[in-house]
Amino acid sequence: MKVAVLGVGRIGAMHAELIAHRADGVSLAGVYDVVEGAATAVGERLEVPVFDTADAAIGSDADAVAICSSTPTHIDLVVAAAEAGKAIFCEKPLSLELDEVDRGLAAVEATGVTLHVGFNRRFDASHAAVRAAVADGDIGQLRQLRISSRDPAPPPIAYIEQSGGIFLDMTIHDFDMARFTTGSEVVEVYATGRVTVDPAIGEAGDLDTVTVLLTHENGVVTTIDNCRQSAFGYDQRVEAFGSAGIVSSENHTSHSTIKRTESGSAGAVVPYFFLERYIPSYISQWEQFASAVRSGNPPSVSGADGRAPLVIGLAAKQSVATNTPVRL
Amino acid sequence: MKVAVLGVGRIGAMHAELIAHRADGVSLAGVYDVVEGAATAVGERLEVPVFDTADAAIGSDADAVAICSSTPTHIDLVVAAAEAGKAIFCEKPLSLELDEVDRGLAAVEATGVTLHVGFNRRFDASHAAVRAAVADGDIGQLRQLRISSRDPAPPPIAYIEQSGGIFLDMTIHDFDMARFTTGSEVVEVYATGRVTVDPAIGEAGDLDTVTVLLTHENGVVTTIDNCRQSAFGYDQRVEAFGSAGIVSSENHTSHSTIKRTESGSAGAVVPYFFLERYIPSYISQWEQFASAVRSGNPPSVSGADGRAPLVIGLAAKQSVATNTPVRL
Amino acid sequence: MKVAVLGVGRIGAMHAELIAHRADGVSLAGVYDVVEGAATAVGERLEVPVFDTADAAIGSDADAVAICSSTPTHIDLVVAAAEAGKAIFCEKPLSLELDEVDRGLAAVEATGVTLHVGFNRRFDASHAAVRAAVADGDIGQLRQLRISSRDPAPPPIAYIEQSGGIFLDMTIHDFDMARFTTGSEVVEVYATGRVTVDPAIGEAGDLDTVTVLLTHENGVVTTIDNCRQSAFGYDQRVEAFGSAGIVSSENHTSHSTIKRTESGSAGAVVPYFFLERYIPSYISQWEQFASAVRSGNPPSVSGADGRAPLVIGLAAKQSVATNTPVRL
Amino acid sequence: MKVAVLGVGRIGAMHAELIAHRADGVSLAGVYDVVEGAATAVGERLEVPVFDTADAAIGSDADAVAICSSTPTHIDLVVAAAEAGKAIFCEKPLSLELDEVDRGLAAVEATGVTLHVGFNRRFDASHAAVRAAVADGDIGQLRQLRISSRDPAPPPIAYIEQSGGIFLDMTIHDFDMARFTTGSEVVEVYATGRVTVDPAIGEAGDLDTVTVLLTHENGVVTTIDNCRQSAFGYDQRVEAFGSAGIVSSENHTSHSTIKRTESGSAGAVVPYFFLERYIPSYISQWEQFASAVRSGNPPSVSGADGRAPLVIGLAAKQSVATNTPVRL
Repeated sequence: MKVAVLGVGRIGAMHAELIAHRADGVSLAGVYDVVEGAATAVGERLEVPVFDTADAAIGSDADAVAICSSTPTHIDLVVAAAEAGKAIFCEKPLSLELDEVDRGLAAVEATGVTLHVGFNRRFDASHAAVRAAVADGDIGQLRQLRISSRDPAPPPIAYIEQSGGIFLDMTIHDFDMARFTTGSEVVEVYATGRVTVDPAIGEAGDLDTVTVLLTHENGVVTTIDNCRQSAFGYDQRVEAFGSAGIVSSENHTSHSTIKRTESGSAGAVVPYFFLERYIPSYISQWEQFASAVRSGNPPSVSGADGRAPLVIGLAAKQSVATNTPVRL
Repeated sequence: MKVAVLGVGRIGAMHAELIAHRADGVSLAGVYDVVEGAATAVGERLEVPVFDTADAAIGSDADAVAICSSTPTHIDLVVAAAEAGKAIFCEKPLSLELDEVDRGLAAVEATGVTLHVGFNRRFDASHAAVRAAVADGDIGQLRQLRISSRDPAPPPIAYIEQSGGIFLDMTIHDFDMARFTTGSEVVEVYATGRVTVDPAIGEAGDLDTVTVLLTHENGVVTTIDNCRQSAFGYDQRVEAFGSAGIVSSENHTSHSTIKRTESGSAGAVVPYFFLERYIPSYISQWEQFASAVRSGNPPSVSGADGRAPLVIGLAAKQSVATNTPVRL
Repeated sequence: MKVAVLGVGRIGAMHAELIAHRADGVSLAGVYDVVEGAATAVGERLEVPVFDTADAAIGSDADAVAICSSTPTHIDLVVAAAEAGKAIFCEKPLSLELDEVDRGLAAVEATGVTLHVGFNRRFDASHAAVRAAVADGDIGQLRQLRISSRDPAPPPIAYIEQSGGIFLDMTIHDFDMARFTTGSEVVEVYATGRVTVDPAIGEAGDLDTVTVLLTHENGVVTTIDNCRQSAFGYDQRVEAFGSAGIVSSENHTSHSTIKRTESGSAGAVVPYFFLERYIPSYISQWEQFASAVRSGNPPSVSGADGRAPLVIGLAAKQSVATNTPVRL
Repeated sequence: MKVAVLGVGRIGAMHAELIAHRADGVSLAGVYDVVEGAATAVGERLEVPVFDTADAAIGSDADAVAICSSTPTHIDLVVAAAEAGKAIFCEKPLSLELDEVDRGLAAVEATGVTLHVGFNRRFDASHAAVRAAVADGDIGQLRQLRISSRDPAPPPIAYIEQSGGIFLDMTIHDFDMARFTTGSEVVEVYATGRVTVDPAIGEAGDLDTVTVLLTHENGVVTTIDNCRQSAFGYDQRVEAFGSAGIVSSENHTSHSTIKRTESGSAGAVVPYFFLERYIPSYISQWEQFASAVRSGNPPSVSGADGRAPLVIGLAAKQSVATNTPVRL
C-alpha cells in the first residue's frame, strides 16, 4: 500500500520514515509540504518523489494519504482525499471545530473511504495490554481508571496560541485512551486546572496543569492528570481498577540497569518524549491501518473516535469556565 | 510512659500488644472494654490489670490513655481524660459531629494535655518518605497529588450503618494524608461516587467506590480513589508530582520472589489489610507520641489535624449530594 | 511449649524476645548466660527467671532449650539437653569439628529428642517461595542455582579468629540454602577466594570474598558469592533456573518509595543486616519448631542438615588450599 | 561511509538493513552471499547492488566491509579486505583457530586498516551503564562479577557440530563482557558443564549448560551461567559488585504492564532473543564503528579483543576436560 505524506514537520517526517523503512505492508509514495524545503529534505533522504501541491499528492498513484499538516488544514485535505477515493490517515485532532469535523466525516461517509485518526497510544504494547486485560475480564468489572500524562516540556507559546488549548491539544490523547480502555462513552466531564509551569501560558489564555474527571456511560470514573512540564521525562501511565484486580502500564526506562549503594537504589530515566517512547506504537499503527485498508475492515480508530474526544475537550473547557460538571 | 487502653476490639487489642511488647518508651498500664470478656482476654494474655470502668482506667496511675472504643464514645472519654490530666491518644475519627469534636478540643486546650489523633499512615516509612521528599523540595514545587486507597473487603453492613459513611470512615485517612503530604489546607472539595461492591451498602445510604478532588490553599490538586473492595489486597499508595520530579510510595508485597516463565513474570500478593501493612507505622506512632509527651513538644498529629478531615468529609458528602464543588 | 534460652548475646537475646512475645505456641521459661549481667538484663526486661547455670536451665521445667551460646559450647549442651530429654534448638554451626557434631548427633539419636538446627533462612517467605517453586516443578527441571550472600560489615577480628573461617561461619548458611533449595546433596566443591575488605582478615588466616561452586548429586551446579562487606546492605538472594523458567528471591528494601527526577529513579536502601531482614523467618522457625515438637514430627532442619554444611565447608577450605575441586 | 555486507544470512541481513536505514553515518554499498538467492532477496528489498563475488564486493567503492559469512571464511576475507585497504567489521568469533586469528590480525596490522569485532553487547545501553559505573568508580573497587546468559532455544545440531562448542560459540560473548566490564585480562579459567537440554547436543560432543569462573589479573572473579535453552526468554544480565555498591543490568520486558489480582502480580515476558533485545546495540555499534573509521581512532572492539575470548574459550574446554582450573 503506497502512502503519500502531506506535511513533513516533526511528526510527518517521522511517519514518512516509518512508512518507508520500518512498517510492513506500506511504502512511501512521496511527500508534500507547504514549506518546499522541508519536503525536499525528506524526499531526498528517503529517495521518494516530492509533490508540488497537496492535490498532486492526493492525485498521485498513492493508495492512501497521511495528513500530518497543521490542524486547520486537516478537514479540507480529508475531504479532498475522500473525494479522490484515497484511504486516509489523519493526525489528531481532526479539527478544533466540531462542524468542521462533521463536514469531514460526512465526506468520508459519502465516499466510503477508510479514515483512521492517529491516536497512536492505543497501539503501544503496554497500554494495549491494559485494554486487553479490561476487555478480557482479567480484572473483573471495571470500576475506576487513572491516566497520568505529562509532557517533558511545554511547546512554544506560538504553538500554544493556536493549539485550541491543553484539553484539545494534549488531553485529547487521554480522552481517547479513556474511551479506548473503558470501552464506554463519556457522559459527564469535570475539569480543573491552573498555570504552574509558565505564566506566559496563562497569558495566552491556556492552562498547563489540569485534572479531569470523566464519568462513563457504564459508571466508571476516569481521572486524568496532565502537565505540560515533567522533569522526570514523558509520563505515560494508565491504570485500570476492577472488581478482580488492577492493571497498570508503567513508564518505560531508558535502560534496565540499577545501581545500589549505601544511599539506596538508582535507576535510569524515563524516556524523554514521544519519539523515545512511542515509535513502536506508530509502526504498529501503520501496519494495522494497512491491514484494515487491504481487508476492507473498519479502521481501528474511526472518524467517530476522532470526533468524540473533541466533544469531551470542549466540555472540559466549559467545566473549567463554570467550575461545574458538564453533562454531554 | 504507662498507657491504659480503653476499648480492646481489633484495633485496641493491637494497640495494647504494641504498647506492651513492641514500642519503645511505653508500657501497658491495663485495659478496659465495655465488653468485659474482651478486656479480660487481652489482660490475661498481656498480663496486665483489667479496669472495671473507663473512669477507673482514666483514674489509674497511667500517664496516658489510648481511646480505641467506638466512635460515639470518643469525645466523652477525651474530655474525662483531659480533665484527669492524662495525655490522650484517640483513634480516628474523633467524632462524626463537628460540635462534639470542638467540645473535645476545648477540653484539651483548657487542660493543656497532649492529644494525638491516630492517623497512623503518616508514620509509615514509605508515605513518610513521600512527605519528606515534598518538604525537602526534592521534587521542586508540588503540583498534583494522587492517593489510591482501597480496602480488601467491606466491613459488615451494621458497621457501615454507624460509620458516618465512606468519607468519614475511610476517606478520612486520605484527607489526612493529603493535608500531611501537601502541608496545605483544603479549600475546595469535589466528590463523586457510586455503589459497585454491594447493593446493601447503597441501601444503607452509603457509597463504596468514590473519587474525590481536593483543591489546597497552595493550589495543588489532590485526587483520591477509594473502594471498599480490592481483590488484589490493601491498596495504599501516595504519589506527589512536582516541578522537579515525582515521588511515589508503592504497595508492598508479601515476599520478594519473582518467577519468570514463558507466560511472563509472577510476583507476590499485596498484603491483605492494615495489620499486614501498617504494624510498623503503629509502633512508630507510639514512639513518637511517647516522645512528644515526655518532651512537652506538640504531638505530631494534633487535635486540629483530627478536626480538619472531618470538615473535608462533610463537604464531600455535600458535594456528592449536589454534584458541585464545595468551597470550605 | 516452654523454652529456656542458653546464651543471650545478640542472637540469643533476640530469640528470647521472639519466644516471649512474638512467636505463637512458645513461651520463655527463663534465660542463662555465662555472663551473669547479660542474663539478668534480658531476664528483667522479659520478666522471666534467670538460671544460675546451664544445668539449672536444662533441669528446669522447660520443654525445650535454645542453645545460643558460643560455638565450642554447643555440643556439650546438646548432649546434656538430650540426656535430660529436652527438645533442642541449636544455633548454627553445631560445631567446627565433625567428630564433635557426630558425638552430639549420637546423643540425640540415642535419646530420641528433637534437634532443630537454626538455619533460619529456610523460613524466610521469599526464599521459601523459591524452594516451593522448585519443589512444585513450577520452573521444570532445576539446572542452575545462584546464591548471593553478603554481610554489610565484617565482624571483629577476634570473632573471625575463632569463627572457623568464612566457609564455616558465613557460607555455611548458603550451603544449607543450596541443599534446601535443590533438595539434593552436594558431591563436589570448588572454592576460590581472597581478601578485599580488610588485610587483617587475611592476617588472621581467613578470606573475606569468596566464590564457591557446588555440584549436587542431581547434577545441578550452585554458585555462591560471599563477601564480608557490602556497602548497599545485607545481600540475600537466591535464584533457581530450570527448564521451564527461573525464580528469584530479590533483596528487600527498607521502604517502597521511588523518586524520579531528571537524574533517573532513586529507591530505598536494602535492609542493613539480619535483624532488619530476617525477624519474620526467626518467628516462623520457632512456630515450626514448636509444631514439630508437639506433633512428634521430624524437625524441618534436622541434625543431618546441621552436619552436611560443615562437611561442605571443610571441603571448600581444602579446595582453596589446593585450587582443585574436592569430591565429597 | 559505504559498507558492503559479505554474507546475508540472519545476522548479515540484519546488519544490511541497519546500515541501510537505521544507523547514522553509514550507507549500504551492496551485498554478497555465497547463496545467490539470499543476496538477491536482500539486495532487492534494500535496493542496493548485489555483488557476484566477495572479491567484487571488497573491490567495490565501499569504504568498509562487514564480514557476516560463516566462521571458517572470516580470516580469508579479513586478509583480503585488509589488503584492499578497507575498514573491516567482522562478526564473532574471528575464527575457531588461534593461528588463523593471528594470521588475520597480522594482515590488519601490516595494512593499518581498522578492524572491529562484532561484540555488540558492549553497546547495549544497560550493559554499558554497568561498565560505566565500574569505570567511574561508582561502586568502588570491583570485587565480583556475575553474568547470566541464556539463549531461548538451542540452534540446530548441524550448527552446533560446526560451532566450535558452546564456549567458543556462546560463552565467547560473555568472555568479552567479562573483559569489557572489569577492564582486566583473564588469568585463570575453571569451567564445568553438562547436557540438560538435548542429549543430541551431548552426542555432538558439546555441552548445553555450563558455569565458568574467570579470575582476572586484578583479582576479580567473574562467574558465568550459560544455558542453550531458557523458557522465560533471552536471559542477559550482568552484575558487578564492588566495595561501594552493586550495579546490575536486568532483563528487559516486552511491555511495562503489571496486573495484580488475588493471585499476585503478573508482568510481561522477557524478549525472546537477540533480535528482540539487541537491535539498538547493533545500531550503536555501527555508529561507533563509522565514527572510529572516520576519525582514525582505534575501534572500540579491537582485533585483540576478538582474540582474547578465543583463548579463554579454549582454556574453558581444557578445564572441563581435566576438571581443573587452567592458567592462561
